[in-house]
Amino acid sequence: MSNTDLSIASNAEILPIGEIAERAGIPADALELYGKYKAKIDVQALLPAARLGKVVLVTAISPTPAGEGKSTVTVGIADAFSQLKESVIVALREPSLGPVMGVKGGATGGGFAQVLPMEDINLHFTGDIHAITSANNALAAFIDNHLHQGNALQIDPRRITWKRALDMNDRALRQVTIGLGGPAQGVPRQDGFDITVASEIMAVLCLATSIEDLKERLAQMVIGYTYGKEPVTVRDLGVEGALALLLKEAFKPNLVQTIEGTPAIIHGGPFANIAHGCNSLMATNTARQLADIVVTEAGFGADLGAEKFMHIKSRKGGFHPDAVVIVATVRALKMHGGIAKGLLGEENPEAVRRGMVNLAKHVDTIRQFGIEPVVALNRFLTDSDAEIGEIMEWAAASGVQAALTNVWEQGGAGGLELAKLVKQELDRPTNFAPLYDETDAVEEKLQTIVQKVYGGAAVQLTDQAQKQLAELKKYGWDELPICMAKTQYSLSDQPKLLGRPEGFIVTIREIIPKLGAGFLVCLTGDIMTMPGLPKQPAALKMDVGPDGKAIGLF
Amino acid sequence: MSNTDLSIASNAEILPIGEIAERAGIPADALELYGKYKAKIDVQALLPAARLGKVVLVTAISPTPAGEGKSTVTVGIADAFSQLKESVIVALREPSLGPVMGVKGGATGGGFAQVLPMEDINLHFTGDIHAITSANNALAAFIDNHLHQGNALQIDPRRITWKRALDMNDRALRQVTIGLGGPAQGVPRQDGFDITVASEIMAVLCLATSIEDLKERLAQMVIGYTYGKEPVTVRDLGVEGALALLLKEAFKPNLVQTIEGTPAIIHGGPFANIAHGCNSLMATNTARQLADIVVTEAGFGADLGAEKFMHIKSRKGGFHPDAVVIVATVRALKMHGGIAKGLLGEENPEAVRRGMVNLAKHVDTIRQFGIEPVVALNRFLTDSDAEIGEIMEWAAASGVQAALTNVWEQGGAGGLELAKLVKQELDRPTNFAPLYDETDAVEEKLQTIVQKVYGGAAVQLTDQAQKQLAELKKYGWDELPICMAKTQYSLSDQPKLLGRPEGFIVTIREIIPKLGAGFLVCLTGDIMTMPGLPKQPAALKMDVGPDGKAIGLF
Repeated sequence: MSNTDLSIASNAEILPIGEIAERAGIPADALELYGKYKAKIDVQALLPAARLGKVVLVTAISPTPAGEGKSTVTVGIADAFSQLKESVIVALREPSLGPVMGVKGGATGGGFAQVLPMEDINLHFTGDIHAITSANNALAAFIDNHLHQGNALQIDPRRITWKRALDMNDRALRQVTIGLGGPAQGVPRQDGFDITVASEIMAVLCLATSIEDLKERLAQMVIGYTYGKEPVTVRDLGVEGALALLLKEAFKPNLVQTIEGTPAIIHGGPFANIAHGCNSLMATNTARQLADIVVTEAGFGADLGAEKFMHIKSRKGGFHPDAVVIVATVRALKMHGGIAKGLLGEENPEAVRRGMVNLAKHVDTIRQFGIEPVVALNRFLTDSDAEIGEIMEWAAASGVQAALTNVWEQGGAGGLELAKLVKQELDRPTNFAPLYDETDAVEEKLQTIVQKVYGGAAVQLTDQAQKQLAELKKYGWDELPICMAKTQYSLSDQPKLLGRPEGFIVTIREIIPKLGAGFLVCLTGDIMTMPGLPKQPAALKMDVGPDGKAIGLF
Repeated sequence: MSNTDLSIASNAEILPIGEIAERAGIPADALELYGKYKAKIDVQALLPAARLGKVVLVTAISPTPAGEGKSTVTVGIADAFSQLKESVIVALREPSLGPVMGVKGGATGGGFAQVLPMEDINLHFTGDIHAITSANNALAAFIDNHLHQGNALQIDPRRITWKRALDMNDRALRQVTIGLGGPAQGVPRQDGFDITVASEIMAVLCLATSIEDLKERLAQMVIGYTYGKEPVTVRDLGVEGALALLLKEAFKPNLVQTIEGTPAIIHGGPFANIAHGCNSLMATNTARQLADIVVTEAGFGADLGAEKFMHIKSRKGGFHPDAVVIVATVRALKMHGGIAKGLLGEENPEAVRRGMVNLAKHVDTIRQFGIEPVVALNRFLTDSDAEIGEIMEWAAASGVQAALTNVWEQGGAGGLELAKLVKQELDRPTNFAPLYDETDAVEEKLQTIVQKVYGGAAVQLTDQAQKQLAELKKYGWDELPICMAKTQYSLSDQPKLLGRPEGFIVTIREIIPKLGAGFLVCLTGDIMTMPGLPKQPAALKMDVGPDGKAIGLF
């Protein structure tokens, strides 16, 4: 049997979830079991904490399409902290089924730094994303039923912004027409499907702090505009209660374990472009209530996930990261050094050195927030000593803390040095400050992000975006944080500008108010909210044995 | 607080599911908990049974749109058997979320004859239907991806029969066009969504007897035809393994309890028109392995659900009902006696007497199968003694066993007399025989059903159906049982022909091969496979309290 993530997971010893809960200090009556190895946490049944745990945020340099192993490192550091006898919980995002069936095959860390039971977590888990799909599409059905039943609210079918959703990679659903077939089959109109993790309801679930807050955020969501161009909200339709009811179990954080038995809370997984790309605030808060150290991650590079963690999630949660880890790989640095995808496996210390500018910019960004980052060099088998030497020398020369990690192969033991560096940072106070205030003008907020985080020259708005901005101001929606939807591959809005581009201008194509989530999505370039399947989907290798065991998740 | 089903359920004492499992003789290691009150049963971990339990099938007369309380009576008889110290399990269908949000508000029995935890069962339960939705739509995405990636199988986009599915009442999705927006967004074609319970995958899951059988049935499903008009199956696409993987947990039966603590297995819920309308064979087999008596139900009236139970489910399962209960209500009999919907609340013994012909026909049908039925007269508060007297007198005069039940108000105590009558039948051998053989010609099978079960004169096939029949024969698909898709309101194919119509001719409009399920769906009239929402959906009254408790399920 080859050493795939699934085979490692299958051979791992897994503890009954009750034992993990005990380790985490979760009382038995706060635990709702889902099988033997998963549970939901009834947060209302937890005891109040004497003090809240510190937060380690794991982010990355601008990634390659294969990703840099951020989840793997996140799990590995947590296991390293466990080995160092620290009280620690790792808080991750839930994998989306669509990418699992398409390219990824699994998204629960890797090797000896993964969360268990990996096959359950990668498939339906505890049903959270299905509940979000249900709520999203119930709302869509209520909207179309409203049109069909007389349209008392005078909703303009051409101006409905609420889309349907499926947790599937299905390009054929990006643009559809619905309601065809005559008067008995609804009102014809254009529509489209997003992947569920791009639904505003995912972002709402991840940012709500109570059932009441969840319901209020759902009520505030804008679903479209009337013929008179006035916004229509979920509250106008009167269905926020039904939507909250559909989400009440999904709102509870899920408890699982790492392969080394560290408690892991996996909950929520919004896109890191159209949304903020962090696991739920409920999960992070719950973990902080239970452990001294919470290790969590944010999607894509520090320009996207980390920036949004600081400006959106932290702000809503009333905390900030106490330490930040930036994951880098030799492969990605070579790519930023100008090497083509097919040649990344060949040794090239020169290219690594050239690519270091990307890492340097992300280090600089985190420092601007008042936090001294630690670089985790996530080692791959193909990395040469010379290549690794380049990075370590640069780090030493630039006064950046860095550690080599090998958690895929060694688990927590491969992340001990990193964990020790992070611990030093946790023991030091930060000078955290956000880079902009919510009350800044939208243009100013955008300029701050582009100049300080992306290292660009300026931001410009298309005519459409300017018109939308004027409308936002009219409705008083402009005092919200920005959620940039930008390519993850480049610091700029152009996927092919690798390394550390300078002097670029970022174009905002469209501004979409997400009043439930509580941010303004600013679209740059073409952002895909419904992925497609590749020519050979991962699903072709998937199977289930006569014993009911999964085959082909990796 | 008014005495709604939800308030009764909320005030009921509910036992930890481990205790119910112990009652049912399920060993702890065969139990996978989903919260405190639900569990999946790992059937492979059960001990083999010395002998298999007998099966009580609960069916009904031709129903009113509100239903005759069949699930309520099914639960009530089981609880009555429990009170009589019999070893009993009730095996029911899973509610579909779409109708819960639309009209029903809940589908787990009623009053003091319901299953708990009713709010979980009515909402996402253990995620089975979501898993079916995922598998259904993954297959659709694989098909459209195949078209997009070069269409090696030469699938004709105009002849794709596989539809997408959502567990929602959403009329605007009945007829859609997908793949719009240019070459990067897939291949444009017409499509439509069914409600998930109408998906062939639901029928497959309900008729499979093992994971291997499940996979084989999935592989056999026809998804469309090539440009050369040859059938294309899931096996041709190579994704049966991935679909089975998505279904592996959903395939395990769910254990819950009645309000009186009788073990209840709730699993699967296919439509009773486009599919066979019975809970899963896995559930019934598991229940038979565990208890002496298994009480189960089939959808709509005896002309639909019971006929399919005998000819489809029993045949695949290698058993037959040992007793049959036909549920009748005064309201429905009055309707069959010609009374309009708005006047059904008014006393009218005459109308009851006129409507009795419908009940008589269903009694006759069950007798033709070699089983002596027992009539359960499900009492409502508005029924008068005179009306009930009419029915009881008719029963006595015609030699039909009948008992008055009042399980909504009294629970099992309201069904004791019925249970005693049923027990007598269970202790007698039946002369069960199906009315047709699978090897009979399709026309002959159809004629048997129309004449013997519906009491009609003949069957006729449209030109289209005849053409389809010729194709079926060509592919050797004609030796399968029939699954009639017919209105539930009339014995005929015309919803308004109430009572006991005679001399009618049933028209088969279309014949759809369901090779995975293993039956031929024969469509008569307009069969709705995606319901719509009413003007005031039940969802408008739904909510969740700050304590996380459901409001507005009823």
